[in-house]
Amino acid sequence: MIIVMEENASEEQVVKVVDRLVNLGFDIHRSTGARYTILGAVGSRLADIRSLELLDGVQKVVRVSSPYKLAARSFKPEGTRIRVKDVVIGGDQVVLMAGPGVIESREQIEVIADALAKKGVRALCGSAFRSSSDPFGFQGLAEEGLKILREMTDRHMMLAVSEVTDVAQLNLFVKFVDIIQVGARNVQNFALLKELAKLNKPVILTRGVSSTIEETLMSADYLMISGNHQVIICESGIRTFETYTSLTLDVSSIPIIKKLSHLPVIADPSRGTGRRDKVPPMARAVVAAGADGLLIEVHHDPEHALCDAAQSLTLEQFDKLAGQLRVTASAVERKL
Amino acid sequence: MIIVMEENASEEQVVKVVDRLVNLGFDIHRSTGARYTILGAVGSRLADIRSLELLDGVQKVVRVSSPYKLAARSFKPEGTRIRVKDVVIGGDQVVLMAGPGVIESREQIEVIADALAKKGVRALCGSAFRSSSDPFGFQGLAEEGLKILREMTDRHMMLAVSEVTDVAQLNLFVKFVDIIQVGARNVQNFALLKELAKLNKPVILTRGVSSTIEETLMSADYLMISGNHQVIICESGIRTFETYTSLTLDVSSIPIIKKLSHLPVIADPSRGTGRRDKVPPMARAVVAAGADGLLIEVHHDPEHALCDAAQSLTLEQFDKLAGQLRVTASAVERKL
Amino acid sequence: MIIVMEENASEEQVVKVVDRLVNLGFDIHRSTGARYTILGAVGSRLADIRSLELLDGVQKVVRVSSPYKLAARSFKPEGTRIRVKDVVIGGDQVVLMAGPGVIESREQIEVIADALAKKGVRALCGSAFRSSSDPFGFQGLAEEGLKILREMTDRHMMLAVSEVTDVAQLNLFVKFVDIIQVGARNVQNFALLKELAKLNKPVILTRGVSSTIEETLMSADYLMISGNHQVIICESGIRTFETYTSLTLDVSSIPIIKKLSHLPVIADPSRGTGRRDKVPPMARAVVAAGADGLLIEVHHDPEHALCDAAQSLTLEQFDKLAGQLRVTASAVERKL
Amino acid sequence: MIIVMEENASEEQVVKVVDRLVNLGFDIHRSTGARYTILGAVGSRLADIRSLELLDGVQKVVRVSSPYKLAARSFKPEGTRIRVKDVVIGGDQVVLMAGPGVIESREQIEVIADALAKKGVRALCGSAFRSSSDPFGFQGLAEEGLKILREMTDRHMMLAVSEVTDVAQLNLFVKFVDIIQVGARNVQNFALLKELAKLNKPVILTRGVSSTIEETLMSADYLMISGNHQVIICESGIRTFETYTSLTLDVSSIPIIKKLSHLPVIADPSRGTGRRDKVPPMARAVVAAGADGLLIEVHHDPEHALCDAAQSLTLEQFDKLAGQLRVTASAVERKL
Repeated sequence: MIIVMEENASEEQVVKVVDRLVNLGFDIHRSTGARYTILGAVGSRLADIRSLELLDGVQKVVRVSSPYKLAARSFKPEGTRIRVKDVVIGGDQVVLMAGPGVIESREQIEVIADALAKKGVRALCGSAFRSSSDPFGFQGLAEEGLKILREMTDRHMMLAVSEVTDVAQLNLFVKFVDIIQVGARNVQNFALLKELAKLNKPVILTRGVSSTIEETLMSADYLMISGNHQVIICESGIRTFETYTSLTLDVSSIPIIKKLSHLPVIADPSRGTGRRDKVPPMARAVVAAGADGLLIEVHHDPEHALCDAAQSLTLEQFDKLAGQLRVTASAVERKL
Repeated sequence: MIIVMEENASEEQVVKVVDRLVNLGFDIHRSTGARYTILGAVGSRLADIRSLELLDGVQKVVRVSSPYKLAARSFKPEGTRIRVKDVVIGGDQVVLMAGPGVIESREQIEVIADALAKKGVRALCGSAFRSSSDPFGFQGLAEEGLKILREMTDRHMMLAVSEVTDVAQLNLFVKFVDIIQVGARNVQNFALLKELAKLNKPVILTRGVSSTIEETLMSADYLMISGNHQVIICESGIRTFETYTSLTLDVSSIPIIKKLSHLPVIADPSRGTGRRDKVPPMARAVVAAGADGLLIEVHHDPEHALCDAAQSLTLEQFDKLAGQLRVTASAVERKL
Repeated sequence: MIIVMEENASEEQVVKVVDRLVNLGFDIHRSTGARYTILGAVGSRLADIRSLELLDGVQKVVRVSSPYKLAARSFKPEGTRIRVKDVVIGGDQVVLMAGPGVIESREQIEVIADALAKKGVRALCGSAFRSSSDPFGFQGLAEEGLKILREMTDRHMMLAVSEVTDVAQLNLFVKFVDIIQVGARNVQNFALLKELAKLNKPVILTRGVSSTIEETLMSADYLMISGNHQVIICESGIRTFETYTSLTLDVSSIPIIKKLSHLPVIADPSRGTGRRDKVPPMARAVVAAGADGLLIEVHHDPEHALCDAAQSLTLEQFDKLAGQLRVTASAVERKL
Repeated sequence: MIIVMEENASEEQVVKVVDRLVNLGFDIHRSTGARYTILGAVGSRLADIRSLELLDGVQKVVRVSSPYKLAARSFKPEGTRIRVKDVVIGGDQVVLMAGPGVIESREQIEVIADALAKKGVRALCGSAFRSSSDPFGFQGLAEEGLKILREMTDRHMMLAVSEVTDVAQLNLFVKFVDIIQVGARNVQNFALLKELAKLNKPVILTRGVSSTIEETLMSADYLMISGNHQVIICESGIRTFETYTSLTLDVSSIPIIKKLSHLPVIADPSRGTGRRDKVPPMARAVVAAGADGLLIEVHHDPEHALCDAAQSLTLEQFDKLAGQLRVTASAVERKL
């Protein structure tokens, strides 16, 4: 940590800051320049930077060490590949994960899984627990939904991907699901992250709609520091002043996270745009920017979908997109 | 709901939209103008506006009815007053709620409660469950903390206010706490809201850092529609591009929510600024803008606080601020 | 325009709103429903929506007609192609425009133009007027710079592209430049737009860092309504809460503008990211999302560039990127 | 400037960074710790921080010196008071500046000036040059408008305040106006700032809707470094994701700028909210937060105002507000 004193800071102010830091357990190196006094503080404790900034005579406090360690690229410069059964995320292949927004019935999943498996999709997504703003709306099939998902993915040798919304559901996820998704609203739900960290299951950690990239990687660190290193980061849009789309998919976060972290990065253009007609261009953009995978909502009959109809592709649209993605991936020397 | 068709929409497109709406259970009134065809759709169901907008020939879909009903001002034009024991929130008095960010020990709460009670503060706040980004940091005293809070508030005839972070804690809150706070991260945690709605306890519902005012009132509606009408909205800062403060306290949300809703509105300048020196000016601003109350973090010894030290006022600073707030309140014809 | 009255609006309030609208020159159609009274107002004048919303009893005012006409897709459904000499923008080809951030010297432009021409780049960009936040920094070569740009583009049969920062410079631009760029800061400089509208020169109109897509298209309309229909929209990043990059390049604006408007859309990943290492992934993303062209800063010796060094690609980096873009363009059935 | 190297930076990388800095004219102090190597760079030149960050092995570059000097509080710790005729801005008194959004006619200004003078307002505002997004809308009375403003302010011994939109207008402003306002769109129009810097006239510098506080103070520095130290900062709203108001008035910027800078700070709640009914609460909030003054739009007949009707107070509303502001000011020990 580096503390820059104000130009006109008094000796007394400097001494007070030094004393405070020493009391907090830091070793201090003082450098007195013609204009500024600068203090370097070395120690293992986390200090409250804002508190130090409020001390008299302090101009600025700069954290030197990264606020995340295990998620940082330097921890594993060669990059992390997460193998789930025979699918590798973070390798040469761009992994497509697709499925309906919510699991509605066995028939629905049967049709969709069948179609997607034929197109070579290796991971099937679908929610069994909905967190809807409509108290009287469809709340998901819960355990029954996860069972259906498991059965259909087993039939087609696919991975089962589903979103957890509460700690109490975790035992079901352990039993039925291959990759557990943490949604944007839960990226700082530390009670949930703490339990996920104890599992030996890959986790898709979705960036919050108002989370910085740094905060997202800090949440990844939280999972990893407690034991679970199988973390996949997912960009699914941030809130900005633009209102045409519900969120703005931050495509630049893909190459930024790839640089800052060794973890695989995927994106969710369905939630990130909220509109079916914007999913194909944004899916292509994200692959062109270097993403390791995609989450895409697909429905065999969007007109009758129980939710998220507007952002679901039809099977035909998905098919056409997959072809475009194959070419796009080749531009970054990857396969689909 | 009003559907505006594109200027060059074909008759076929119009008919298709009408059919779709009729199938969804709406009555349709069609108005064909020289340039635009406009459809009025009347019905009780919630339609997915984005799906309708994706239909061919549709230019714009406008919701006519408010997305929240019970929280709307029109539901109770005279405004809601929430009486908790002998304190009224939403009345003539601006209600100060104060206390430490986190309950650290009996001694700490004893000192702070004693001092605040002498200054006339009627509600004592403090967290017993922390949701910290530091997995090894202080996690709160849990049940023991709520018991201490109860004991001290009973001693001084104060209200006990504390933040819930998980459904599993609710039975403790029912037992020990007078007003339950839902933090910014949980404003759309509908599983939690559903349980809170069943209680007969006042709830402080904090606006999320990326929630619009409308979304916040929709969450209030969620609580009310299931039975709990004792809802207090709390502004505690939104995320913007400005980085000097961690959040930007949206003072204008106070008069806006007062107009749109009949619910009492308070603000939390401590979390909303994150810096002790900005708490007094923003506390005054919020009262001047018409807030019904304030949540303020106070600590008898911020230098040794276990958390949130930077945003806690000392008892002396709080005392001085209370005097200023008294004058400010008089400018809007209210008392402190 | 549609005016939705509040559920409990009185007849008197409705009549007052109707009177006001009639006075403003509108024809009114009134529709009285069980719960809501809705007024349709037809007329040619622009009304101040916010003023109407402030009238007693009004719940919501909705503009039916688009706030931009000539820039709207419906004005020219087949899309606009802008031909400048033998280059077509908005056609099958993705047009690369490249060059240094600022014109520093004849030698510099000679080297860069020569290299880019060999790589097939058909438009050379460079600023001659800088609007620097450093009062003592390099301010650009002004007329001399534009002359150099003209000479070098003539030599290589390239188009000359440069940014105007003040009305007073326009006569020079008419003389020396093929495409005039309006920077993000000037997208609502209506005095400048008014003069540009009188010219018969293509204009690149850059979205402002806090302009919505709608506002950007309204500025395009401003140019077009006064006579200049050769407008190219440029996305170059918006301000968000994320701080790793100076701006967030809004890739989704590309397909959105392509849908809403018939005008060609390009993007500037150099300014939009501010960092050389993020330019290639974002350039690819933008092409994959359907952009009609790119503005890319290139310098033969970025280490000694007088400005914008961090966001300039070397000639080698540009070369590699161009190859990737060729493949990416093929994914959307376009050529480079 | 401090350069923090990555944990695993090689000696070669460190040496390369040092060489680069030495070439740029910096003196370097190297500190090699157990984990991090840190370089302190001392010199007078401005370096491009982003370019340094792109060098291999560099983790972070931190500017030690403030990016603004003359506007910084340390330059004049006691604060700046700007005296214009017999009005002092930045002193004990909160200065009210009021008037119509635009000067429409002699009659209009006569009525408004007369009324405001009677209420003790000492500064009359009104625009003579409009920068309207409507090419066919009212463009202002130009010179004639400024003459009317001068005549009426002379009659009532008030200050004339008006907004400049182009360098070419400055000679008129020198002649007719006491305080020149730079609007939010021009805060980084350095060509305009350069000319204003040469004048001996107070300038109100409005924060841009997407300008950080730091950027705003850098623009103030730009004016001051070239000679004009009579700068007043004006907060008039920033763009956020909230859409109920057109902008979010950032009240916290008032105490922040008062701490960071010695310059007087005022606010414009009319533009900052865009709605008449939100002006009084926000005007009170801003005074409670410590503002040195207010710009408020007032019209004797808003229903027939040529522009900005929705955000203009009537004379009666202004009168009532002034009374409330008097009490509010007393809470911060100031007068109106």
